[in-house]
Amino acid sequence: MQLVSYRRRDGADSPRVGIADGERIVDLVDAAGSRPGGHPVPGSMLELLRLGDEGLDLARKCLDRARDTGEFSAPASEVRLLAPLPRPNSMRDFMLVEEHVRNSFGSVPAEWYRLPIHWKGNPDTVIGPDDEVPWPHYTDKLDFELEVAAVLGKRAFQVTPEQALDCIVGYTIFNDWSARDIQFREMEVQLGPALGKDFATTLGPTLTTADSIDISTARMSARVNGETWSEGTLGAMVFSFAEVISTLSVDQPLQPGDVFGGGTIGRGCGLEMDRWIAPGDVVELEVTGIGVLRNTVGQKRLAPGYGIDLVRTTA
Amino acid sequence: MQLVSYRRRDGADSPRVGIADGERIVDLVDAAGSRPGGHPVPGSMLELLRLGDEGLDLARKCLDRARDTGEFSAPASEVRLLAPLPRPNSMRDFMLVEEHVRNSFGSVPAEWYRLPIHWKGNPDTVIGPDDEVPWPHYTDKLDFELEVAAVLGKRAFQVTPEQALDCIVGYTIFNDWSARDIQFREMEVQLGPALGKDFATTLGPTLTTADSIDISTARMSARVNGETWSEGTLGAMVFSFAEVISTLSVDQPLQPGDVFGGGTIGRGCGLEMDRWIAPGDVVELEVTGIGVLRNTVGQKRLAPGYGIDLVRTTA
Repeated sequence: MQLVSYRRRDGADSPRVGIADGERIVDLVDAAGSRPGGHPVPGSMLELLRLGDEGLDLARKCLDRARDTGEFSAPASEVRLLAPLPRPNSMRDFMLVEEHVRNSFGSVPAEWYRLPIHWKGNPDTVIGPDDEVPWPHYTDKLDFELEVAAVLGKRAFQVTPEQALDCIVGYTIFNDWSARDIQFREMEVQLGPALGKDFATTLGPTLTTADSIDISTARMSARVNGETWSEGTLGAMVFSFAEVISTLSVDQPLQPGDVFGGGTIGRGCGLEMDRWIAPGDVVELEVTGIGVLRNTVGQKRLAPGYGIDLVRTTA
Repeated sequence: MQLVSYRRRDGADSPRVGIADGERIVDLVDAAGSRPGGHPVPGSMLELLRLGDEGLDLARKCLDRARDTGEFSAPASEVRLLAPLPRPNSMRDFMLVEEHVRNSFGSVPAEWYRLPIHWKGNPDTVIGPDDEVPWPHYTDKLDFELEVAAVLGKRAFQVTPEQALDCIVGYTIFNDWSARDIQFREMEVQLGPALGKDFATTLGPTLTTADSIDISTARMSARVNGETWSEGTLGAMVFSFAEVISTLSVDQPLQPGDVFGGGTIGRGCGLEMDRWIAPGDVVELEVTGIGVLRNTVGQKRLAPGYGIDLVRTTA
């Protein structure tokens, strides 16, 4: 099953939850009718995920009802998809594929093999399919990253890897837009990237439930203006999503709507190939079973003329 | 004015918003009565902050009404204070004081003088005054950090430093609990701290509005079991809160309820002095005008026996 968030193009502009069914989008609220106990039908993906298994059952019933009746759906071409989680509860991004680490850093630090290395993203700058990517004023080296993310559909606190796997509701494509010049300057001070990543992350186009995809073998690719730059699979990861989630859960409760990027696959970004995108480029990330996540890159923002001068020292 | 979140000890256990008035806590909902237009009175600090200046005016009126009538308040000793924002919209922590950087890293990286270096905290593990600090299973070097944080009370997008200053609703104490052994292992891989910080952050005891405190001269101190370990002021910062917020706002919209830690003051943590807290210790951070933020340190959690073995390689 492929869960989506979307807006109707007809003018009703608040985000809605839907289920993609081929070329049609089934509307959750319309198809659900009512919930047991008179509780409201979830109006957002985050609310749906917070219902856990009950929410998934509800979505499946809506899909069945729409197929049975031929009602409650619209052509996909007539709606605008959003990020499945327009505002995730949180976003973490791991670095679980060795080839990307080696290509990006030149060598692999010993601790990378021992710890689930990650940083935390900015849930307030998530953008969706077909949104324009803002080009920050402080970078000349904007880059994409081809990743898959696991999304939690249950609270996870002190769970084993087996239990963690059951907490993953599904997967989406994760484009971790990066401003490489400032990112590497920031990382010299050891607290990790911030301005280098926090301006935008794309999620989408669907949140594909875990029972509908084998994430380790799904084909992944990145195209820039139609030309394939990257191709591969997630393949071997130093730790699995389940191991990572289980390990973090020992000392911090994890929540429905938490997003866990798995890390860029080998040669899954421009940095690794010294190839660079430009304003106006169209970047498409595709993962078989999840869909195609397409964004156009915007024009570089002007330097603001106030605040800290972030570019004066960029050589 | 000192805004607080609290629970009544009498059994009504959902968090409430209040205003501290000496030894009494005025309840916002009780004192407000109604809002223009029949809108509900905010039931949480985040909702209050999202009202911007209207929210602050409402809180001031509630304080006045409680003083005038002698009603709508309870003795502070009869309630339990929570973190003013039990779940901030986001948490960033900067490193704006040179002495702390020099003491912690041995030298100051050149980029520290040029960029607003920060990492992002975990809003889902915020704890409040008098809460027990969980001691993660993977550390033998738990530490506190004495910091002040600025809290946004308005959306800030592409704002000048002057406008940014107007977006800061007030300040709170920020104890950035840190697991130093794993933190420094993580930082070898350049993505910054995660497990080393994400298990707990204390905020509180009050959110003191910006008109009630001069944050640059307020006395700051840290005590462990009653003994003063740290004393000082925020003093000279490489960048002001207003500059930092303005600069970030150019390429990312900032939101009400975003928390900006200013960074540990010089000798404001055990790491800088090679002094270490132990289970059962009582750590108090005090900032004149904001209050005393007291936590007891819990017993070390047991290793879970599942997931990634985080301590096998700790020498």
